[in-house]
Amino acid sequence: VTSQQQLFIGIDGGGTKCKARIVDAQGQLLGEGIAGPANPVRDLQQTFDSIIEATESALKQAGFASDTKSSLIAGIGLAGVNLPKYKAKVEAWQHPFNSMTLTTDLHIACLGAHKGEDGAVIITGTGFCAGYMIANNYNEIGGHGFLLGEQGSGARLGAAAINKALEVLDGIAERNSFIEGILEQLGCQDAISIVEKTVNAKPSFFAQFAPLVFKHARLKDKYALEIVYAAADYISRMARRLLSEQPPRLSMIGGIAEPIAHWLDEDIQLRLSAPLAPPEAGAILLAQQIRIK
Amino acid sequence: VTSQQQLFIGIDGGGTKCKARIVDAQGQLLGEGIAGPANPVRDLQQTFDSIIEATESALKQAGFASDTKSSLIAGIGLAGVNLPKYKAKVEAWQHPFNSMTLTTDLHIACLGAHKGEDGAVIITGTGFCAGYMIANNYNEIGGHGFLLGEQGSGARLGAAAINKALEVLDGIAERNSFIEGILEQLGCQDAISIVEKTVNAKPSFFAQFAPLVFKHARLKDKYALEIVYAAADYISRMARRLLSEQPPRLSMIGGIAEPIAHWLDEDIQLRLSAPLAPPEAGAILLAQQIRIK
Repeated sequence: VTSQQQLFIGIDGGGTKCKARIVDAQGQLLGEGIAGPANPVRDLQQTFDSIIEATESALKQAGFASDTKSSLIAGIGLAGVNLPKYKAKVEAWQHPFNSMTLTTDLHIACLGAHKGEDGAVIITGTGFCAGYMIANNYNEIGGHGFLLGEQGSGARLGAAAINKALEVLDGIAERNSFIEGILEQLGCQDAISIVEKTVNAKPSFFAQFAPLVFKHARLKDKYALEIVYAAADYISRMARRLLSEQPPRLSMIGGIAEPIAHWLDEDIQLRLSAPLAPPEAGAILLAQQIRIK
Repeated sequence: VTSQQQLFIGIDGGGTKCKARIVDAQGQLLGEGIAGPANPVRDLQQTFDSIIEATESALKQAGFASDTKSSLIAGIGLAGVNLPKYKAKVEAWQHPFNSMTLTTDLHIACLGAHKGEDGAVIITGTGFCAGYMIANNYNEIGGHGFLLGEQGSGARLGAAAINKALEVLDGIAERNSFIEGILEQLGCQDAISIVEKTVNAKPSFFAQFAPLVFKHARLKDKYALEIVYAAADYISRMARRLLSEQPPRLSMIGGIAEPIAHWLDEDIQLRLSAPLAPPEAGAILLAQQIRIK
């Protein structure tokens, strides 16, 4: 790799997977890679392992040797590094790249969605967070973790469904086909088995139940509707908060973005614009911006 | 201690504290003791340590030496041992007593509340669970852990309050004196500090915020009312489920029992009877029953 062949890598890491893309100085896409979870709050070593794995996979697709890592200019966006403690842990990493610029997964999503221009973004997948960039001033809101926030996330949708299934098994809510579906997907028919299966489960486990919630909400199941409306209400309020900053564009991305859009307040639905590029592309924009400064 | 002076110890262990009481063969109360948390799901070694500490404290008050432990007939009720895995772990303990009979904290509460007779019980403190004994047939419902159940618990009330405080800091809910109170008790004024403080917090941490929720519900704060009504609805539904078994008596105990009672459905409030004896006394009844068999 000569200086004329400057290579950039953009990495997007979250609770479910880690994606990488490599481009050359002209912005030409050379290769992409994917690996497992990369959330430093949950597992720091796994985060580093997933970043390396996604990188090597992208290098392979691009036709470069594994040791080309040391010449890559890396832009990395990770869930959880909005917390200073976890940002410091990742920045202390003896990374294998030429250089590494670290920010949140939300920041690179925002950069990608609006190609580096002003705009706001909502990410709703396993987790939930929101942010906006106005006149080079970047801010984040929401995204406080599975337990105390992120009501608009797939994990919260799935957990609420399992919660309702437990009420049914306790005899304080009615059994119906939605609940049957949840119990079938859990592979459990009693409360003790469910608790044993979920007591130490990660958000990604719960998020697997979100598609079933949407399926039954579309079938007008009262419990599924209650869960989806609560999530949609939270997201609509968050969208309104973002729009109060007057961003030129608002995009919603992540696995829950498409199924939930239909349930948001109508004025919010009308304001949503499709993202222009994926978060990995935003990570590359970040790496290039830093390089230029 | 001679055989004429047979000593019984009853122990009630939960997520917040562990209580012990020692009685003689005539049922005369000789001493009581208290120690820290004893929830084997959260921390097995701490559970054993708390049981020993509460026991030694009760022995001391009774005027017995610490090594009298080896002659105590123990009845122990613990949170979490409704899960077979955790029951097995506690039963494998090389306990220091003459004998140990283990059951759930709920079972001894039910035995105590109705002096060993038929009846139903709801425990709402840090956690939540419910059970009933009808014609020597004992059953439990609810109590599936902080994350997926126990909507009527102090921990869930407190977590909901912190959740709402984060919405206020995000600008998607209104700041008011209830939220000010929560932020003051947290000692935090920004979302990141709150997340760092709560990300690994135990249910007992969240339960500390329940009194403030009740205080502001009484002052008609809309957020506090929403949280309290959700908890009360869950408890009312659970009480109705218990009453469907036609228990002669229904008691509600634990730190949340008194403040929430007022918010339950009126027909449920009218069915509540005061517990006749504390769970530790129920644990002694259990130990004595086993001894008699």
